[in-house]
Amino acid sequence: MNFLRYKLDSTSKTQLGWEETGQIGTLDGDLFTGYTRGPLMVDIGRVVLQPPVQPSKVIAISGNYLSRVQEHPVPADDLPIFFFKPSSALIGHHTPIVIPPQSHQVEHEAELAVVIGKRARFVPVQDALQYVFGYTCANDVTARDLQMGEQILSRSKAFDSFCPLGPWLTTRVDPADMLIICSVNGQIRQMSSTREMRFSVPQIIAYLSSIMTLEPGDVILTGTPAGVSQIYPGDLVEVEIEGIGTLQNPVVEAAG
Amino acid sequence: MNFLRYKLDSTSKTQLGWEETGQIGTLDGDLFTGYTRGPLMVDIGRVVLQPPVQPSKVIAISGNYLSRVQEHPVPADDLPIFFFKPSSALIGHHTPIVIPPQSHQVEHEAELAVVIGKRARFVPVQDALQYVFGYTCANDVTARDLQMGEQILSRSKAFDSFCPLGPWLTTRVDPADMLIICSVNGQIRQMSSTREMRFSVPQIIAYLSSIMTLEPGDVILTGTPAGVSQIYPGDLVEVEIEGIGTLQNPVVEAAG
Repeated sequence: MNFLRYKLDSTSKTQLGWEETGQIGTLDGDLFTGYTRGPLMVDIGRVVLQPPVQPSKVIAISGNYLSRVQEHPVPADDLPIFFFKPSSALIGHHTPIVIPPQSHQVEHEAELAVVIGKRARFVPVQDALQYVFGYTCANDVTARDLQMGEQILSRSKAFDSFCPLGPWLTTRVDPADMLIICSVNGQIRQMSSTREMRFSVPQIIAYLSSIMTLEPGDVILTGTPAGVSQIYPGDLVEVEIEGIGTLQNPVVEAAG
Repeated sequence: MNFLRYKLDSTSKTQLGWEETGQIGTLDGDLFTGYTRGPLMVDIGRVVLQPPVQPSKVIAISGNYLSRVQEHPVPADDLPIFFFKPSSALIGHHTPIVIPPQSHQVEHEAELAVVIGKRARFVPVQDALQYVFGYTCANDVTARDLQMGEQILSRSKAFDSFCPLGPWLTTRVDPADMLIICSVNGQIRQMSSTREMRFSVPQIIAYLSSIMTLEPGDVILTGTPAGVSQIYPGDLVEVEIEGIGTLQNPVVEAAG
């Protein structure tokens, strides 16, 4: 099943919905505590999709694909390295990624995003997938020139629009071997499988939950494979994950 | 005026309130969009204080006091260095700081916290204080041993209970020259003035708002002065800021 958040137009309020074969139905209640589905109502092309969840935190794993670590050496520890992206960076499907005036090298990073379904703290690896609500496509957009000058992963990852997420949450898929592709203007730049991950989704959840409480709706970006490249105003960036769908975002210049 | 969030007991729901001379009154509405105050009702000692806001993000500035940079060299750039703390780390006045099993060196960092009052993006320095709702005391609790082994400021700052905040938000105070003191078991460990900050509160807000949208309720921790030291189970840590009040938190061991 695919779950999403949408507006009927850019001025109306955000609603919960579900998707099937390009049609959206309404959804009453809350994804994590209980909901009822209404009938399919409107074509997905006629609504404005929002980020599919409103997380209390977005955690991102660094250096989780060996191919990427070879391309761009990062500290590869025995434990996952993570950082936070602010909720102000979240955008949905089709919303533009804005190149900020401070950077001359903004890059895409296609990632599988995990959405937590129930409160998780000190969860063992073998139980971890029980705490997942679903999965979605993410782009951990990064100002690489700013990252290179700093020792910490915060500013370069935190600009508004630097966390596209969507188009929807997909439940009942297996995160262990999903094809993940990033294309720019139809040309493939990243292509790998989640099977390449150094730390699996259950291992990541277990590890993070040993440090902090994961709340329903919290989002974990699980790292990006090789092939990261610069994006420019006018580009169309697509993150496609097998079994989920394709997240599309145009790239624009910041308004002067 | 002092604003706070409280529960009448640990099982009841969180309410907004205001404080005067040790008494709490109810408050209807929303701090940022409009509220009405009820009469003073209950002694502050009879309620359970919560973190005074529910931020969409907590941003923390590193290396903002020269005395601390001398004590513990951090990259001191021409621009403020910042990182994020997760909302799951927030606790209120009197709630225990839990020493996690992963660390053998947890330290206090007393900081002035700024609470944003209205949405801020590309704010000039001279207008920045208009976007502040109020101020509170914060403790940027840090697992120093974990921090030293990593290049990024995330895990060491992110454990549950590592962001005490309170006891309340205070409005109409001047952040430019406030005495800030941290005591452990009544013994002073940190004592400085916000006048020592390398980047002032208006400069920090202007800078952060050039990167990301600051939302009402968002919290900015403005850095810590020299005197940081280890805390142990059984300690009582107090962060006192002139014109605001004193944030007290006991320290406990993680439950086995």
